[in-house]
Amino acid sequence: MSYAKQLLDTYPRDVNLDADLLAATIDALSDCAQACIADADDDLSEQNIAEMVKCIRLCLDCADVCAATLGVTSRQTEYDANVTRPLLEACVATCKSCRDECERHAQMHEHCRVCAEACRRCEQACNELLAAME
Amino acid sequence: MSYAKQLLDTYPRDVNLDADLLAATIDALSDCAQACIADADDDLSEQNIAEMVKCIRLCLDCADVCAATLGVTSRQTEYDANVTRPLLEACVATCKSCRDECERHAQMHEHCRVCAEACRRCEQACNELLAAME
Amino acid sequence: MSYAKQLLDTYPRDVNLDADLLAATIDALSDCAQACIADADDDLSEQNIAEMVKCIRLCLDCADVCAATLGVTSRQTEYDANVTRPLLEACVATCKSCRDECERHAQMHEHCRVCAEACRRCEQACNELLAAME
Amino acid sequence: MSYAKQLLDTYPRDVNLDADLLAATIDALSDCAQACIADADDDLSEQNIAEMVKCIRLCLDCADVCAATLGVTSRQTEYDANVTRPLLEACVATCKSCRDECERHAQMHEHCRVCAEACRRCEQACNELLAAME
Repeated sequence: MSYAKQLLDTYPRDVNLDADLLAATIDALSDCAQACIADADDDLSEQNIAEMVKCIRLCLDCADVCAATLGVTSRQTEYDANVTRPLLEACVATCKSCRDECERHAQMHEHCRVCAEACRRCEQACNELLAAME
Repeated sequence: MSYAKQLLDTYPRDVNLDADLLAATIDALSDCAQACIADADDDLSEQNIAEMVKCIRLCLDCADVCAATLGVTSRQTEYDANVTRPLLEACVATCKSCRDECERHAQMHEHCRVCAEACRRCEQACNELLAAME
Repeated sequence: MSYAKQLLDTYPRDVNLDADLLAATIDALSDCAQACIADADDDLSEQNIAEMVKCIRLCLDCADVCAATLGVTSRQTEYDANVTRPLLEACVATCKSCRDECERHAQMHEHCRVCAEACRRCEQACNELLAAME
Repeated sequence: MSYAKQLLDTYPRDVNLDADLLAATIDALSDCAQACIADADDDLSEQNIAEMVKCIRLCLDCADVCAATLGVTSRQTEYDANVTRPLLEACVATCKSCRDECERHAQMHEHCRVCAEACRRCEQACNELLAAME
């Protein structure tokens, strides 16, 4: 069981959203943030670095947005949908832009394939959490 | 002149948005992120801490979202409005929630008044940048 | 297999440190950063919040330091031991301070017990990586 | 007056370190974090990007470490020198590595000259704060 799930299970009040779904989203955000940091660095080591600039940039953006979304969704106390919802929407959009670009390089660079998968899973998890907030 | 403005002035390509407006937004994001971290900590030192919980939570959220928005808006290369726009919108919403709560404590706690001002200026700067993107 | 390990396995050059050890450290940093964010929030929901202030503060510090260390250790390209080593040492010290405080509350608050475990594992992983750098 | 100084002036307890020195350090950390994010992006837009890889990497590291140090030094409540001191030392080391590399490109790239200046000021401010902690 992930730490995210353990911390939700030991939260002293009621959790505002479905705990399993929330824990899965937090884990996907954590994975995606790290994968994007690592993929940007992998790109920096490639021979065709000039063609990887857009990928590096979007990976850095995606890492930043996932980290912020991880923080906000990890906080249960005094939950505020006005904060959580637009941030999840921004996170979905960023993961999508990053994934699209990573997929363009996935055939040539295996690390971009891995990062695209982390982005897709994060995008999906954020979308499911948004749907559960309706 | 702020470092943000100096770095935009020495950017090797054309800047995607109005450089003065962008630099002002980056500086406001930087100020707001720091003010929110500090205000959350100030709240932790107050006698009536139990009443400050919502303020602490929103300050932590606001610091995270401003830091991510600072990162994304500081990057000019391969600009992607699909990433920048929803994040600026999320940042406006978060600054607003945080400011509303800080203002509730502004009479009693001077640090909340200062933080509310940083949030208001950041909210306004992000809104102006969004308007310039139309 | 974690994304950290997959990204190291697909890194286009040689990895500077033992890849298994490095991936385990990155995962422990990621877990600890999230656990500390969540535990600080759990503390904010407790009845005895006034007694949890030190724990909240150290959890916020530990989350920040682990996130920075995660970033630096995730980058393989142009590895610089002058940056990595003192940061790992700072991370070990921060995890230790945070764990000590969480353990003081572990009997009363299960979430502090979980967070203390995440800190202990992260401290240990960073120490092993430091030892491998000798 | 910077927000950092205003927040320290309105802190409800005594500040643990000299408030002017601390505020100057927080401002220098904030400037350096942003300058490093922007300079890494500027490097990505240069023709000779393959020669800028080390600079990009160190700028990303420096931004991460400065952001964490900004968080820790902005928190006054339950001050713990065991956390603050090694992190400031890590920050000094990171700023130095980043500055050295930026200075190598300062003649060719004006943005690297600006970033090197932000790093030098941050390094100096952290060193002064460390000296004041003796």
